Amino acid sequence: MTQPSEIERLIEMMAKLPGLGPRSARRAVLHLVARRDAQLAPLARQMQLVADTARECTNCGNIGTADLCPICTDPRRANGQICVVETVADLWAMERASVFSGRYHVLGGTLSALDAIGPEELRIPQLVARIDEEAVREVILALPATVDGQTTAHYIADRLEERVALTSLAQGVPIGGELDFLDDGTITAALNARKPL
Amino acid sequence: MTQPSEIERLIEMMAKLPGLGPRSARRAVLHLVARRDAQLAPLARQMQLVADTARECTNCGNIGTADLCPICTDPRRANGQICVVETVADLWAMERASVFSGRYHVLGGTLSALDAIGPEELRIPQLVARIDEEAVREVILALPATVDGQTTAHYIADRLEERVALTSLAQGVPIGGELDFLDDGTITAALNARKPL
Repeated sequence: MTQPSEIERLIEMMAKLPGLGPRSARRAVLHLVARRDAQLAPLARQMQLVADTARECTNCGNIGTADLCPICTDPRRANGQICVVETVADLWAMERASVFSGRYHVLGGTLSALDAIGPEELRIPQLVARIDEEAVREVILALPATVDGQTTAHYIADRLEERVALTSLAQGVPIGGELDFLDDGTITAALNARKPL
Repeated sequence: MTQPSEIERLIEMMAKLPGLGPRSARRAVLHLVARRDAQLAPLARQMQLVADTARECTNCGNIGTADLCPICTDPRRANGQICVVETVADLWAMERASVFSGRYHVLGGTLSALDAIGPEELRIPQLVARIDEEAVREVILALPATVDGQTTAHYIADRLEERVALTSLAQGVPIGGELDFLDDGTITAALNARKPL
């Protein structure tokens, strides 16, 4: 072996990241090793800092650096709406759109009989508890349009029915989308949900 | 902002790695934050370890953890051959092929008038010095088949002429390559260098 074992080990660890494989991990590590003081050492320190400080918000499951995330501690966001998302990435995507001013609830996955993921694994009991605690009027289900995502949405709807208003994100043609490139399901959904001009 | 600044900063740093952008960096960081103890903290420690220990071999420019890399300290590899490569990644690629048993010399780039990279920036004086020091008989130029790569090869050939045998990697059809997918230059090179069966 020409690669020292320390570097070999770092490449193996980097190759486990989503979106990277052995080849791109090698490239990234060589890039970093050539910039030890300017990039590698600061990146190592930042990772350690995040490893030490990041934690899940005990209320909504968002990632933060305290027991409660900035959204859950912001009184302006207690507007009686909770948007239920699958992952923290989905929460961030919603926040980038800057269109929702309520709070979130991150499930951390979707119900899956195959993977033996039940309601207890998904913070669904915590969601049910928040309805009363936070005087929630509306729960917006922003779950993926997959079989598991929709199963999860139906399960949550069953649990919360008659206690809050339940809505879900609209389905249809994405902004900038061309019909020619859309799948049949999306076109069907968009046609069925057509609106008067 | 919903992303805590520590995580935001980590995403920015990861997004600077080759092969990653803001989107894939966010995905990788979320993956790591969800596995703080199992992946993030060990990765941070490994990066710090590499940042502290990795250094360039003073003889050949390979990456190692001592002043001289394992190849330069291995007496069996002092066979009078030096293979000149552009980057450490190229050196590793040669080593994976397990076909070369001599030593290497990593230039760290190619001559480039545009980027003002001259021989002094490229460890070329060190290469010239090694010819006598290590009783080198043959220098194999394994430089990229680009204009800058070939300029560099010619420059080195001029400097070393009449002191050592100079060779370069053969150009032609790659193993498993289909003619239909090859560029004209490769086909021309392969035809010009055709061999009797």
